[in-house]
Amino acid sequence: MIEMRSDTFTLPTEQMLAAMTSAPLGDDVYGEDPTVRALEETSAQLTGKEAACFLPSGTMANLCAIMAQVPRGAKVIVGDESDIYLYEAAGASVCAGAAYEPVRTDEEGRLPLDGLAAAFPADPDDPQFALPALICLENTHNRAGGVVLDEAYLRAVRDFADERGVPVHLDGARLFNAALAAGTTVEAVARHADTVQFCLSKGLSAPVGSMLTGPAEVIGRARRVRKLLGGGMRQAGVLAAAGLIAVTRMPQRLAEDHANALRFAEGLAQVPGVTVDPKRVQTNIVLFRLADMPWERFVAETADLGLRVAEFGHGRIRAVTHRGVSRADVDRAVEIVGRVVAR
Amino acid sequence: MIEMRSDTFTLPTEQMLAAMTSAPLGDDVYGEDPTVRALEETSAQLTGKEAACFLPSGTMANLCAIMAQVPRGAKVIVGDESDIYLYEAAGASVCAGAAYEPVRTDEEGRLPLDGLAAAFPADPDDPQFALPALICLENTHNRAGGVVLDEAYLRAVRDFADERGVPVHLDGARLFNAALAAGTTVEAVARHADTVQFCLSKGLSAPVGSMLTGPAEVIGRARRVRKLLGGGMRQAGVLAAAGLIAVTRMPQRLAEDHANALRFAEGLAQVPGVTVDPKRVQTNIVLFRLADMPWERFVAETADLGLRVAEFGHGRIRAVTHRGVSRADVDRAVEIVGRVVAR
Amino acid sequence: MIEMRSDTFTLPTEQMLAAMTSAPLGDDVYGEDPTVRALEETSAQLTGKEAACFLPSGTMANLCAIMAQVPRGAKVIVGDESDIYLYEAAGASVCAGAAYEPVRTDEEGRLPLDGLAAAFPADPDDPQFALPALICLENTHNRAGGVVLDEAYLRAVRDFADERGVPVHLDGARLFNAALAAGTTVEAVARHADTVQFCLSKGLSAPVGSMLTGPAEVIGRARRVRKLLGGGMRQAGVLAAAGLIAVTRMPQRLAEDHANALRFAEGLAQVPGVTVDPKRVQTNIVLFRLADMPWERFVAETADLGLRVAEFGHGRIRAVTHRGVSRADVDRAVEIVGRVVAR
Amino acid sequence: MIEMRSDTFTLPTEQMLAAMTSAPLGDDVYGEDPTVRALEETSAQLTGKEAACFLPSGTMANLCAIMAQVPRGAKVIVGDESDIYLYEAAGASVCAGAAYEPVRTDEEGRLPLDGLAAAFPADPDDPQFALPALICLENTHNRAGGVVLDEAYLRAVRDFADERGVPVHLDGARLFNAALAAGTTVEAVARHADTVQFCLSKGLSAPVGSMLTGPAEVIGRARRVRKLLGGGMRQAGVLAAAGLIAVTRMPQRLAEDHANALRFAEGLAQVPGVTVDPKRVQTNIVLFRLADMPWERFVAETADLGLRVAEFGHGRIRAVTHRGVSRADVDRAVEIVGRVVAR
Repeated sequence: MIEMRSDTFTLPTEQMLAAMTSAPLGDDVYGEDPTVRALEETSAQLTGKEAACFLPSGTMANLCAIMAQVPRGAKVIVGDESDIYLYEAAGASVCAGAAYEPVRTDEEGRLPLDGLAAAFPADPDDPQFALPALICLENTHNRAGGVVLDEAYLRAVRDFADERGVPVHLDGARLFNAALAAGTTVEAVARHADTVQFCLSKGLSAPVGSMLTGPAEVIGRARRVRKLLGGGMRQAGVLAAAGLIAVTRMPQRLAEDHANALRFAEGLAQVPGVTVDPKRVQTNIVLFRLADMPWERFVAETADLGLRVAEFGHGRIRAVTHRGVSRADVDRAVEIVGRVVAR
Repeated sequence: MIEMRSDTFTLPTEQMLAAMTSAPLGDDVYGEDPTVRALEETSAQLTGKEAACFLPSGTMANLCAIMAQVPRGAKVIVGDESDIYLYEAAGASVCAGAAYEPVRTDEEGRLPLDGLAAAFPADPDDPQFALPALICLENTHNRAGGVVLDEAYLRAVRDFADERGVPVHLDGARLFNAALAAGTTVEAVARHADTVQFCLSKGLSAPVGSMLTGPAEVIGRARRVRKLLGGGMRQAGVLAAAGLIAVTRMPQRLAEDHANALRFAEGLAQVPGVTVDPKRVQTNIVLFRLADMPWERFVAETADLGLRVAEFGHGRIRAVTHRGVSRADVDRAVEIVGRVVAR
Repeated sequence: MIEMRSDTFTLPTEQMLAAMTSAPLGDDVYGEDPTVRALEETSAQLTGKEAACFLPSGTMANLCAIMAQVPRGAKVIVGDESDIYLYEAAGASVCAGAAYEPVRTDEEGRLPLDGLAAAFPADPDDPQFALPALICLENTHNRAGGVVLDEAYLRAVRDFADERGVPVHLDGARLFNAALAAGTTVEAVARHADTVQFCLSKGLSAPVGSMLTGPAEVIGRARRVRKLLGGGMRQAGVLAAAGLIAVTRMPQRLAEDHANALRFAEGLAQVPGVTVDPKRVQTNIVLFRLADMPWERFVAETADLGLRVAEFGHGRIRAVTHRGVSRADVDRAVEIVGRVVAR
Repeated sequence: MIEMRSDTFTLPTEQMLAAMTSAPLGDDVYGEDPTVRALEETSAQLTGKEAACFLPSGTMANLCAIMAQVPRGAKVIVGDESDIYLYEAAGASVCAGAAYEPVRTDEEGRLPLDGLAAAFPADPDDPQFALPALICLENTHNRAGGVVLDEAYLRAVRDFADERGVPVHLDGARLFNAALAAGTTVEAVARHADTVQFCLSKGLSAPVGSMLTGPAEVIGRARRVRKLLGGGMRQAGVLAAAGLIAVTRMPQRLAEDHANALRFAEGLAQVPGVTVDPKRVQTNIVLFRLADMPWERFVAETADLGLRVAEFGHGRIRAVTHRGVSRADVDRAVEIVGRVVAR
């Protein structure tokens, strides 16, 4: 089975499994797990932030970033096509008493500055308006097809946010993919945000966990929130051991995923009945459309032939490359798509 | 001063003031104020619902409707141009732990059915999606310029909601204006909604208060919410006395406001530098634009000459007619606008 | 019918009703009602605070005080016998995301300092502990029988709160009764609290409304909360007009209520089968017990004879004096109790 | 270093580590991790419930149980000495909009039935009262010294809850210790509760995780909550693999911990200046007091000599036995205590 529904299906490497069994452990709820601490320090350094916090998921990392920076009754500015808004079960409204302000996302995954500006009321003293307290960006942008936010845009949002006096959170679930595609460092991508979330799973292949990095004071508050939500874990070093390998050894291999995604898109472009734009494939995600086939049938029939992909809204199909998908798998996947579409 | 910023500036009539001083009173927190009870019964009957609850404001009436029908973690579908979404301080997220799902509003104040449908996730069992639990409409629609939702649309939303198993709430702050303009009864306008909110202030001229009407069980839950929010009032009969006159004697005079609004729009249409479409004036609200003048200056200069209007987003000015604005005032208002624009 | 269930049953005076019909009005949601402003200024001055906010109920005044001072996830220290904890529907948990920390109340309505201290965790940096953010006192204390908190205690709580860096809120629903019984001014009673709530209804006889007073910044935040909860009212001056008379002309007559309460208690003390301690009657509330009769029967039978009283927890009956209960009523009430108990 | 601060310091066994590296994995967010599923099935069976859900912590398991069973605005009845109330950061108020109702706990860790009854208002229709929606018990009871709730009590609470129409949640962080000490099965201990939480860490020695078991419908809702809180984990099978060993192989060794705890208490009983009652040691927790020494000094000095214990409120010291504490360690711990106290 070629698993292209998501890069969340990656399995831990042998090296990770070995590290998990030999890592020094402690009770991280007491702050005494040395492996977790090492991962937190490494993550803070990599992203150029003061501090970091290990969390069981990206959803919780995003929620902690929100709860640590957004007071009750304020608004969280998010993209209307962002994962935070669409896939995280309204946690900010439930747990933070905050309202989402979904701003229209452009094709490049950006929230245009005029859209951000429109979220701020003309008269902030008028009590009928909830006030924005955080801007959330997503990089790479999942629903826009894994595209990378350009540096000029990130800087512009930073300047805008400074002018308005609100912090910026970057949902960098695939932060390392973004850095690779932009030809820069993770630190450079993270520079214009106050807080950054990235996943140790997905392309980096660790089994469980995400990191939230940012100013020490904010991360301190996020730790309080983590406890409240139930994200404090005991001998979390077993997971952090894999995470350390994820952040130090795995980023270099993402180039292979990007090449495979492009190869897959180029292959699909040759298949009649499939619409895809290889030029939009910047990282490890490929979005395509089917001319004449309902997605339910397509998904079912490719699965029968050994390829798993997923519907992705707006009539699109998403395929994601990762460590579990080889170049040969990609070629075979193209072939399967061709056979199904030709039926 | 001609006050056209809003119909919320109406003052109570002499008859209302007299009624306030002679109404039988009791402690409504104990459910023992006979005048409040009479107003609740009358309001329920007028809207064709089982029960009604008196509240200090439309904001609280809408919030109670939401909290009585939407569980924690669910979504409230609202128009992206609705008062509930824009002007009520995110109360549903703060107090109900619910997320707003703003759906694009069309020019007629409608939330198109495909927009409503898109708010429902394809797979309701997938826990990453918050689930819609209530659809909120607004009639007349304030930000669309006081337009009236047509009956066919209301029925279509009712059918859609039934299919999806969610209730419909109608923010009818100006419900009586809607009924008048549609040439029908308030009951007919309210028919396709489970719960309806209408304001006793605004065009109906009572000093304070709104009614929420609906099924007895829902209104029972709304009463609990009212207490929690602090909306339970002691000898509230002093307000309800004015409210009774508002719902029984004032609706007939709204025709004058509608005529005045149309007259104002037609007058403005003759003023160079003002853009307005009299055909869009269905009730007591007039929206217009200025060709060459920033709104701040316009608002300040008309105020200096004795006319108050207000900026209304998207570069528009809003003027509202009500009992405090006579036909002569309207003519004078047109003249003032003309003088300011001509400067 | 002699109504002694509560002083919330007071009806407005003739003077209040007259003032309601002649007060200058405006739209208070726009901050333009002159009568509301006058009441807010007067209330701030009376309690020696910078600012004040008019609210539809004491419940909302308390909730606004909490939401303006307590961040999400913090604790509100309340008495385990306080009205805020017992009778206000858990609003702070619902709307503020705050936890109540009920502290044991002594017979004099005080929360002993060691109880307050125990609510603060030894290690505030340990994220498993929610941190206290506000101390709420109640004066007069309803469930303790209308007793008055002594000045030395109020000062001690102030010092404790300053040491711990948290503000103090005073639920002074019957603040004027407290000042009268303590032989001091309302300002003196309010001095040791940051924010104070008092009711215009109850003994002061206005039909609707409560005031929250405190620092300008806190009251500013409370105004935002009021809008969110739906407590913003349009021509609220009709209520404020009565409120102005309540705070300026009615306090002096509370002495009569206190005298009547004491007379009632002394009368009851002569009735066999009734247990009451007149020495504990400090204001307008009398608590008593019945030796041999279930309260349900007692309440029903006194009502049949023209006296309404209410069960009050812990096997007690509460009777409250107010403007609607004369000295002759009190004597008759004693007689009715005597007849019922003697059956 | 002899680590007796908590049994949360246990490290995974060799067998667990081996299982973690060989377990079949999948993406549990998609419900496709076979090892997690196996653990959930096993846990449901062991506790005699329909379904189970794997969670990153006991805090989240308790919070999910609350959020799955308690509507917004209701009360959660908890012991005033319970871990849920004291150590879980007010999560139910923050995330569920629910209020804690702390009921006085007796020496045996029980919430007396009259205390439970008092939490239910006499008039449930009166909107000023929040209504209880869940009763939480704790077994073994940590702050009462690891004592076991007797079966008659559990049954009585079950009957009471049925009568009142509310479910019962059992915080069984140390459920297996409770079953062992009661000489019965885990299923028997869990029988009288609707939902049960137990920890895989603590005495059972898994590195991370807790299970929530209960009716399928409730567990389904808990899964939604888990996603919202960010407790959904990808290849969680690495943790579940250890958890499976925890629940199948580790319970039998808890007898050793209980024996060691008793031995420790009996040893302490011989030390002058230490107050301890060995008869109260039912499981793996020992509480004791010091006659003449402040706990800060005691904790610091025992640590210097190689023994870690912790202050535990009310002037008590807590020591906990677990797989990392041998019989010889216990004897040495007694000796260290003796030396420190004798100084």
